[in-house]
Amino acid sequence: MKKHTVIFEPAGKTTEVNDGVTLLEAAARAGAGLDSICGGSGICGKCRVVVKDGMPALSAPSDTEKKFIRPEEGPVRLACESLIYGDVTVHVPPAAMISRKATRKVSANLNPAVKKYSVKINPPSMQDMGQGDRERLLDALRAQHGLSGLSLDFNILKGLQKTLRDSLWEVTASVWMGREIIRLEPSVSGTAYGLAVDIGTTTVAAYLCDLVSGNILDTFSATNPQASHGEDVMSRITFAMTNSDGLSVMQGEIRECLNGIIKETGLSPEDIMDMTVVCNTVMHHILLGIDPAGIGAAPFVQSVRRSLYVKARELGININGSSYIHVLPTASGFIGADSAGVLIALRPYNQDKKVLIIDVGTNGEILIGDRNGVYSASCATGPAFEGERIKYGMRAFAGAIERVWIDAETKEPSLEIIGNVRARGICGSGIIDAVAGLYRAGIIDKSGRLRLEPLRANGLPHTERLRLDAEGRPEFVLAWKEQTETGTDITITQADVRAVQLAKAALYAGTKLLMRRMGIEKIDRIILAGAFGSYINKKSALVIGMLPECAPEDISAAGNAAGEGAVLALLDTEKREEAEREVLKLRHLEISIDPDFQEEFLSAMDIPHR
Amino acid sequence: MKKHTVIFEPAGKTTEVNDGVTLLEAAARAGAGLDSICGGSGICGKCRVVVKDGMPALSAPSDTEKKFIRPEEGPVRLACESLIYGDVTVHVPPAAMISRKATRKVSANLNPAVKKYSVKINPPSMQDMGQGDRERLLDALRAQHGLSGLSLDFNILKGLQKTLRDSLWEVTASVWMGREIIRLEPSVSGTAYGLAVDIGTTTVAAYLCDLVSGNILDTFSATNPQASHGEDVMSRITFAMTNSDGLSVMQGEIRECLNGIIKETGLSPEDIMDMTVVCNTVMHHILLGIDPAGIGAAPFVQSVRRSLYVKARELGININGSSYIHVLPTASGFIGADSAGVLIALRPYNQDKKVLIIDVGTNGEILIGDRNGVYSASCATGPAFEGERIKYGMRAFAGAIERVWIDAETKEPSLEIIGNVRARGICGSGIIDAVAGLYRAGIIDKSGRLRLEPLRANGLPHTERLRLDAEGRPEFVLAWKEQTETGTDITITQADVRAVQLAKAALYAGTKLLMRRMGIEKIDRIILAGAFGSYINKKSALVIGMLPECAPEDISAAGNAAGEGAVLALLDTEKREEAEREVLKLRHLEISIDPDFQEEFLSAMDIPHR
Repeated sequence: MKKHTVIFEPAGKTTEVNDGVTLLEAAARAGAGLDSICGGSGICGKCRVVVKDGMPALSAPSDTEKKFIRPEEGPVRLACESLIYGDVTVHVPPAAMISRKATRKVSANLNPAVKKYSVKINPPSMQDMGQGDRERLLDALRAQHGLSGLSLDFNILKGLQKTLRDSLWEVTASVWMGREIIRLEPSVSGTAYGLAVDIGTTTVAAYLCDLVSGNILDTFSATNPQASHGEDVMSRITFAMTNSDGLSVMQGEIRECLNGIIKETGLSPEDIMDMTVVCNTVMHHILLGIDPAGIGAAPFVQSVRRSLYVKARELGININGSSYIHVLPTASGFIGADSAGVLIALRPYNQDKKVLIIDVGTNGEILIGDRNGVYSASCATGPAFEGERIKYGMRAFAGAIERVWIDAETKEPSLEIIGNVRARGICGSGIIDAVAGLYRAGIIDKSGRLRLEPLRANGLPHTERLRLDAEGRPEFVLAWKEQTETGTDITITQADVRAVQLAKAALYAGTKLLMRRMGIEKIDRIILAGAFGSYINKKSALVIGMLPECAPEDISAAGNAAGEGAVLALLDTEKREEAEREVLKLRHLEISIDPDFQEEFLSAMDIPHR
Repeated sequence: MKKHTVIFEPAGKTTEVNDGVTLLEAAARAGAGLDSICGGSGICGKCRVVVKDGMPALSAPSDTEKKFIRPEEGPVRLACESLIYGDVTVHVPPAAMISRKATRKVSANLNPAVKKYSVKINPPSMQDMGQGDRERLLDALRAQHGLSGLSLDFNILKGLQKTLRDSLWEVTASVWMGREIIRLEPSVSGTAYGLAVDIGTTTVAAYLCDLVSGNILDTFSATNPQASHGEDVMSRITFAMTNSDGLSVMQGEIRECLNGIIKETGLSPEDIMDMTVVCNTVMHHILLGIDPAGIGAAPFVQSVRRSLYVKARELGININGSSYIHVLPTASGFIGADSAGVLIALRPYNQDKKVLIIDVGTNGEILIGDRNGVYSASCATGPAFEGERIKYGMRAFAGAIERVWIDAETKEPSLEIIGNVRARGICGSGIIDAVAGLYRAGIIDKSGRLRLEPLRANGLPHTERLRLDAEGRPEFVLAWKEQTETGTDITITQADVRAVQLAKAALYAGTKLLMRRMGIEKIDRIILAGAFGSYINKKSALVIGMLPECAPEDISAAGNAAGEGAVLALLDTEKREEAEREVLKLRHLEISIDPDFQEEFLSAMDIPHR
């Protein structure tokens, strides 16, 4: 059967597929980084592409597509619904390609796992034949640098004979953890790099560090290619369980993603001699090739809690093959190595004051504690804070409304849009702002209801923006179609408000329950971790009742604290021990089985809460 | 270009080659186990094959072939000289397929590296989520078997989730050296096998052992497929140095040879969970993929002296992939892991009496010592004792004359032939017997000269067997052509006697020099190791002056002591430590650079010696 060529612009990624393959799957194979929030189930309507060439080669638009795409939008298709039967060229809208970074300057002790030692070795002679090359090298390292008990990685052993002779018996050895020689260079060399990686469900961030100076040289960001199998960890687990090669496909995708980043550094892979990884527990299992099924069902247990060292070559990660990749420990199926990174970056266990750390993503991770101990809980906030299940929701890319103010008098909104382009949708921080604004402007009530009827009954609201949609449900227009990129009004619907309520209630109830189990009434300080936390309007978050009571000045954003933890662990091996120790000390509470959860959750649905 | 199919009978091995490839190379690729002593240089004439089909597809017989093959032999060709230009089927004579085994019953303490433990594991529940699968398994092994500090091989970790759940939380863990879990079975299982391997330059021997009972279940023998690149270690080094892929080709050959043996055991590869290897230092390097060039030139130094543990999967050896292969230590470039095996099998360091151990092969390894210390030396005996460079020499296969008596009166020889078939040639023990017999019968003098002229001058020798060959050089007919398989007289030539003299002189001079350096005058006991040693006629060896003075009753043969050492190390890890300790204590003397060597060697050329 003839294969069809599919080209994805503007990245120029190409693949060949058989008849009947979806554009979404082709995009995944091509590594085109196409966004799919629902994993191809035709629910989210986010995987829009513009067909530049070959529309007749695609299946006819499905009913699902007709629901999401208006005729006037032109040659736009949902990639998940479009089956390929010929050559086709599509354009992936730039939104999925643009991301924002938020990193803090990291100040770490410099005590990397890999250190370099130059040594002169006694060459053998007919009068000195008693030792092999390996023993001569080890003798020299012992005599000249006080290193004893070293082993050699097998690959180093294989090249030893040649390296020693090529170098005229003067080499530089890279020693891992004072234990193993992982590289031997036939010259004096001081170069050593490491990569700290944060594998998010959606985004992979990497920090290239100089292990000699301790500087972060560069940061990299890529879409997690597994996203085409579903937006959240549960869809990844499902993909692994329902496809016999699902796990290996996803492991291959993240491996290739990491190898792509390594290539992007422009460095010789041999020079990257260490890597630390933080990620949630499901990403952790997929990276290592461990079946994540156990995390997907009660009692939600992970395969390995302790941190791991795995040879890069065992994982097919193209840094120096003799190097080890350090994966930080996981506390539970839902408190992963990313939380371990957050812990060592923010160190709540060193604080006198009670700190609440919230890492908001599809899954919310809550850490509360001080030097007397830290508790953790996870809560299923759902994807509303990331733009999913919101009618015009999108992630924080160019065109996303990220700030909303609503004039209490005129009910007119002011908007701030990422990239200063025309609006395409609304992202997480914008949704929280919008709901808070609607509440303060009296447009929604405590229960979250858009008050169209009560206001009309009183001759209000004096705004066309509050209206009924085609199905007769109230919605509020944030941006008129004349102002938008899509030519469609961008609205906040009643369902959107409900989704925000569900998410914030889960977070709030989780926090409150954890506080109650800990026996504490008040939080002294709140730190919002994750990129989302850096952009959230603290006051809006307090207004909608997402956070427990706290003075706004005691709320701060920490950026990607998980990634920062990965960097700290990369630069300082003591931080690895600290992570291991603190994760083992962490007391995890499973909120979902708490008998009070349901009641607490329902009370928290109100705005701000009951 | 069309490839040609080459079939090797009777093994039925097949390969495809391009124009102009030799039959010898094709045989190596096909793994046909074809014997080549000189490595294809057209010197030995041993790589005879019978062409069954496709003679016109081969190059015309070369001058070299015409020298070795008589027209009446029929469609016989030298594989090294025959270039392939079409499909061809050849028959490899059975001689190369038949080998003799000589093993001693091994009595070892049973303390294997791999032990099995059945454990019941606490399954997780919503009330007990605090641990990962890995930690639950380790907790159980600690609580139920007192094992602590265990690690998991990465491959075990990958399958852990499924194995624990499939097994309903009751598994059998195979633990290596009390340190690492290398297998996890979802049932109660006590089966564990190991393979002790002796990789000879020519022959690979393997001993399949039950690690539970300590019994040797089976022994296997195969031709080292590298033999097609040359008979001795130097030709292997040359092959590695002169072919860019020479090392990897030879590494692949020994890997496939070992994997063939593993397949032959008929066991599930997973059940073979340990392997020990002894071999000379060149075979050691090739097995591990280490360039052996350093061993080939002064100062003849090996890459690694200490013993090694290498993951089977790193070497591509198809036993349980998580298992380790233990390679015994090497003392020098010419005293290898095989000598380490001999050491722990024969333990000269535990003896009150001075023991001389000679492991005769292409290279002779000499060990002399007692509980006060053991010295080693190597001496280049050359290949005469193995049948090379002897006109009618062959290895100890069917058809080889292995015993010779010559009547002092009649000068008539009596012969003993392996396999009771017609004679095809003469093997090492036969050559020593023949030279000793010729000397005792007065046919050769002290200097090794065949005394045709002096005897004739005295009206002797009254035998047609002592005659001049076509080039006018004296030779002695051992078997008339009517009695031989080949239809040719089998003779001992003057050159043959010289080759034996050179070999025995090297051995004797080496032994004497080592004794002198040690300051000892007399050896109390001689042990001949290696298969050759089991078949040698002790008295003949004394007559020709191959061994230092010793009462015949104090000379014994130990069979394949190196292989026995591999078995001991397999069954008892303390023997591995013993090997390491004793090899490090071994005092090696480099005989070839001794200023007295030349003189000692020349004196030793006489029969028995000067």
